[in-house]
Amino acid sequence: MYWRYTLRQKLPQKEPGWLPGSMRGAILYSPGDVRVQERPDPRIEQPTDAIIRVSAACVCGSDLWPYRGIQPVHQPSPMGHEYVGVVEEVGGDVKNLTKGQFVVGSFWASDNTCENCRAGYQSACLHRVGMGSLGSQAEYLRVPLADGTLVATPEMPPADLIPSYLAASDVLGTGWFAAVAAEAGPGKTVAVVGDGAVGLLGVLAARQLGAERIIAMSRHADRQKLALEFGATDIVTERGDEGIARIKEMTGGIGAHSVIEAVGTQESMMQAIRSTRPGGNVGFVGVSHDVSLDGMDLFWSLVKLQGGPAPVRRFLPHLMDLIGNRVIEPGKVFDLDLPLERAAEGYQAMDERRAVKALLRP
Amino acid sequence: MYWRYTLRQKLPQKEPGWLPGSMRGAILYSPGDVRVQERPDPRIEQPTDAIIRVSAACVCGSDLWPYRGIQPVHQPSPMGHEYVGVVEEVGGDVKNLTKGQFVVGSFWASDNTCENCRAGYQSACLHRVGMGSLGSQAEYLRVPLADGTLVATPEMPPADLIPSYLAASDVLGTGWFAAVAAEAGPGKTVAVVGDGAVGLLGVLAARQLGAERIIAMSRHADRQKLALEFGATDIVTERGDEGIARIKEMTGGIGAHSVIEAVGTQESMMQAIRSTRPGGNVGFVGVSHDVSLDGMDLFWSLVKLQGGPAPVRRFLPHLMDLIGNRVIEPGKVFDLDLPLERAAEGYQAMDERRAVKALLRP
Repeated sequence: MYWRYTLRQKLPQKEPGWLPGSMRGAILYSPGDVRVQERPDPRIEQPTDAIIRVSAACVCGSDLWPYRGIQPVHQPSPMGHEYVGVVEEVGGDVKNLTKGQFVVGSFWASDNTCENCRAGYQSACLHRVGMGSLGSQAEYLRVPLADGTLVATPEMPPADLIPSYLAASDVLGTGWFAAVAAEAGPGKTVAVVGDGAVGLLGVLAARQLGAERIIAMSRHADRQKLALEFGATDIVTERGDEGIARIKEMTGGIGAHSVIEAVGTQESMMQAIRSTRPGGNVGFVGVSHDVSLDGMDLFWSLVKLQGGPAPVRRFLPHLMDLIGNRVIEPGKVFDLDLPLERAAEGYQAMDERRAVKALLRP
Repeated sequence: MYWRYTLRQKLPQKEPGWLPGSMRGAILYSPGDVRVQERPDPRIEQPTDAIIRVSAACVCGSDLWPYRGIQPVHQPSPMGHEYVGVVEEVGGDVKNLTKGQFVVGSFWASDNTCENCRAGYQSACLHRVGMGSLGSQAEYLRVPLADGTLVATPEMPPADLIPSYLAASDVLGTGWFAAVAAEAGPGKTVAVVGDGAVGLLGVLAARQLGAERIIAMSRHADRQKLALEFGATDIVTERGDEGIARIKEMTGGIGAHSVIEAVGTQESMMQAIRSTRPGGNVGFVGVSHDVSLDGMDLFWSLVKLQGGPAPVRRFLPHLMDLIGNRVIEPGKVFDLDLPLERAAEGYQAMDERRAVKALLRP
């Protein structure tokens, strides 16, 4: 989800794959100005690359940072890092994929063979490539390290499953990682701070992982409804100190076992840490902008803390099974479904919080 | 070890147990001024109390904060929170202890029955009492919540085991907690930041927990020697960025699996976090004074972080078994053994780093 923050600075001024071409893709020109226009067709650059025809992409909460000007836009930039699609072409070293397969990948391309990948931290792959630099909000996409990055479905999925597979590419995998990092499981009370797509899918993950009680913290009726559909057992509308007090009140005065933090602000991080009992776990996946944790606060809390860019690839095969077998339907987070050509409307709706998440179809 | 920091402010101006009496005990009058003098004999105040005759106490790194004036000394304060001794008297509700038993307790008195205690976080006991307010550097000591706090040996131990049992009261239990929080274990490479008593016993704990490789970070020959005796396989003398680089060099470029932080400064915390691989664990038990963790640093590190005041009581029975069976000899950290009357010399030697840890015998 959040690769863009550090990666953007390291990108070449011009992506080498850009050649004159005719595919359509979203480009951010300046804050608030997203246009869908012709972009050069991507091509195989490394023998480990694949080119996919994008079936669906979407707008991420993190795409709103440059859109809102919080993150500078130095040049027109291709957008999007979430994707599902059909393999169109593979490089000479790609062994496990063939043309025509339906595939899902994460927002980090990873080799899935290095020591960090083998340990389940593909988002820290020693050869990782951030997909956002390649721009998945387009008709075609080059996927580096294709064998390590892409997971194929057994067969071409029915159309109604496309949104759920797309969710697996980032927001589901990120919410799932947060729930795993928070050690959600049987007998546990899990609180979820944040009611965006990631927080909501953190609720779904906690439910799948067997949590006993799942408290969604939300003050929006539509998001509360979705949280309940995904398995929340309780809704708390208070936030900050009042939210903490409410969670403690519901947990015998000591706090939740597991707390998922899916916002990334100082307030939400402290709300998460202080809502957790001693020895409990905080899984944080909101990007921690301008967050500073006081050592003594953390010391006295006795909580276990883990977060960061989710290693979605670790969870993809399992999540894709759950989706294919219709056990979960994470695609419900998409409440706006647009043709790619109308990408600008998707950004605007999310920016104005009229939509939780916008799906874009090339 | 570190109860004093937050607790001191909450203490009553005068400990209720202080009555005219004749026992000898250490009192800190002002920075640098520790005196052993008459203190009122403690007496049973609650039916859950026990009074022990102190066999040995010691000076803690955290006792040096007020001694150095880093932490204000508002009034003459009894000192010490580490202790072993013999039960002298028990209150009417004490079920499991009898006069004459040799006991070890931690620096937090805890009931060992509340939900936090049952979860293994006795340092967050809902009824905890910081022992430092009672002052164990004395002939006698009142121990609140005695049934929950004290663990008795099967029989009166031989004199040469006293230092090791005393170490279990804090520094061993704290180093052990750090190693557990860092998930030290078979197949793991563990790095230890800090070569004080806690860091050195973190090395011992990592060895007992089965770690494969244990890297002690120390630049003092005597401490290096003790680290090697306790089970370190490697010594790294560099610190800060150079120390991080050295650990990475020794671990295929990705960092240690487990890092123990036993200092509590900004530099040591960052050294610990940055020496840890993605998905690895940092156990921090140095009190995090003036430490501030940047959210993005922590986010991108992908490490798991847990620390705080060690729930020593969780580990005491096991540690006391290991000591009684002479499997471990944590008492080696005491390199200065003084009669209580010479407590001031112990403080001075530790302040000047001439001693790792001073034992005091009433």
